[in-house]
Amino acid sequence: MSDRPALLIMQRHLGQLTPFLESAYTVYRFWEGPPAEAESQIEALVVAGEFELDKALVERLPNLKLIACFTSGYDRIDVAWCRARGLPVTHAPAVNHEDVADHAIGLILSARRQIAAGDRALRAGDWTPESKTITPSLKDQRVGIVGLGLIGEAVARRAEVLRMSVRWWAPRDKPAAWPRADSLVDLAKRSDILVVACRADDSSIGLISREVIAALGPSGLLVNVARGQLVDEPALIEALRSGVLGQAALDVFTDEPVDVALWADVPNTVLTPHTGGATTEAVQGMLMLLLRNLAAVFANEALVTPVPD
Amino acid sequence: MSDRPALLIMQRHLGQLTPFLESAYTVYRFWEGPPAEAESQIEALVVAGEFELDKALVERLPNLKLIACFTSGYDRIDVAWCRARGLPVTHAPAVNHEDVADHAIGLILSARRQIAAGDRALRAGDWTPESKTITPSLKDQRVGIVGLGLIGEAVARRAEVLRMSVRWWAPRDKPAAWPRADSLVDLAKRSDILVVACRADDSSIGLISREVIAALGPSGLLVNVARGQLVDEPALIEALRSGVLGQAALDVFTDEPVDVALWADVPNTVLTPHTGGATTEAVQGMLMLLLRNLAAVFANEALVTPVPD
Repeated sequence: MSDRPALLIMQRHLGQLTPFLESAYTVYRFWEGPPAEAESQIEALVVAGEFELDKALVERLPNLKLIACFTSGYDRIDVAWCRARGLPVTHAPAVNHEDVADHAIGLILSARRQIAAGDRALRAGDWTPESKTITPSLKDQRVGIVGLGLIGEAVARRAEVLRMSVRWWAPRDKPAAWPRADSLVDLAKRSDILVVACRADDSSIGLISREVIAALGPSGLLVNVARGQLVDEPALIEALRSGVLGQAALDVFTDEPVDVALWADVPNTVLTPHTGGATTEAVQGMLMLLLRNLAAVFANEALVTPVPD
Repeated sequence: MSDRPALLIMQRHLGQLTPFLESAYTVYRFWEGPPAEAESQIEALVVAGEFELDKALVERLPNLKLIACFTSGYDRIDVAWCRARGLPVTHAPAVNHEDVADHAIGLILSARRQIAAGDRALRAGDWTPESKTITPSLKDQRVGIVGLGLIGEAVARRAEVLRMSVRWWAPRDKPAAWPRADSLVDLAKRSDILVVACRADDSSIGLISREVIAALGPSGLLVNVARGQLVDEPALIEALRSGVLGQAALDVFTDEPVDVALWADVPNTVLTPHTGGATTEAVQGMLMLLLRNLAAVFANEALVTPVPD
């Protein structure tokens, strides 16, 4: 028995946090099958917000005091359900939005200027004296940003320097330097590139619908750096196959890691393994917030970054 | 016999210009072996400036009036030699520098944030529940720009919005918004990312030497969107293999198309087939300048964009 509080890390890719937590806590890892006696010891869950919270497990932990999202997003955590059980939820806001915006710009450049595809073609020996790949300039391309939060605004600033024009849409209007479209479909119709940068919750699942994808059209590029479930993925795949949509550049997927077979023969895609916000610097910032929230809950102090009401 | 002037297109990838030239000119293509009588007809060569001018051929064309570079660069055209023979040289300046700068930024993002490599790994099935790729943030990375011309300045403006700091070096000082390093080696030492954006001429062959590459160092990224011969390519390959240099992202190579075998097992590279300046919009602008220079020479008018003295 230890008098140090015990934590349970839920997702395997968060296992890398273990050495940073073990100096102050007893650390269990869900995928290793913690011993039965751990259930009475565990006082905090460490989770990634894009994975569904295991409610049955939560109900088996009598001394649980905190659901600590390592991530900024907490879209698959039922916060109301947690609160009803007296369980606060914390997360890591405003740490990695600029890095996510960089990644969105990298995806736009990689897709439009064929950097990933050009690299692949060159290595395959497809560069010949006859061939000359011509790609579209970013100049005057119209970027539509879905959700003008921290990420969306950071994408907008970058897009302007790259000579693109910016418009946005979100359910609620707010003061902004760029014009807001009348609706999401209107935004898609007026855009060459649609960047999904909004929060995911129950109301926004499938927001990027078949209709929105069709409005973006055969020369349009869909970029998603937010959450996979915001996009109707079967409709997206069908639209790319049929040419209804021009290109997609995706860092996030409905299920992660993605089933590669789903995408293997879908044309005109750039696909990255949810690395947009996972920079060395951002991960350090997220770890710092995690440690501070854990310390606060065990000291009965105010949480540093609880999820907003 | 036609009374329309005859042109000779030298490089195969410029063959795509044929339909735009045929309405006004008789067009021969070098690689198709023009008939012997063409030699007395040809009045202009249409060339790409990164390919060596065939002087023996030029001397066989008695009625040649113009060397028209389709490109902005004219580094492998011996302009002094042409002038000594009364042959003016034109090119297409200031048309595609912003697109080249976009491509440089795309290469930086693709290399640093592992977009091309991430796409490749994902498709190979390397994204697993245990894996989490962490990449370096661009924030506070130090970009060193070699040559602060139109391309270099456009790269600098973009780098700042991406939260990177900018320094530059060129043989000659000039007023600029960013500090100039004392020397190229000094620039490389003070940079995380070195972007080659200068003109290539006899004096700058191999400018990015073994010493410069070593100064950039094991976490450094070399980006080349200018000309392949500016870089000591064997030294670069050796430095990437040994870890003396961290990464390279290259759009240009000493010989183009590049011999893929040279690069097949060189780690930490992003390679694109000289597409930086070849956008639809830029190619249209370059074509327009080509047509205007051709029209001028045959009308005995002043050339629109002769290469500078």
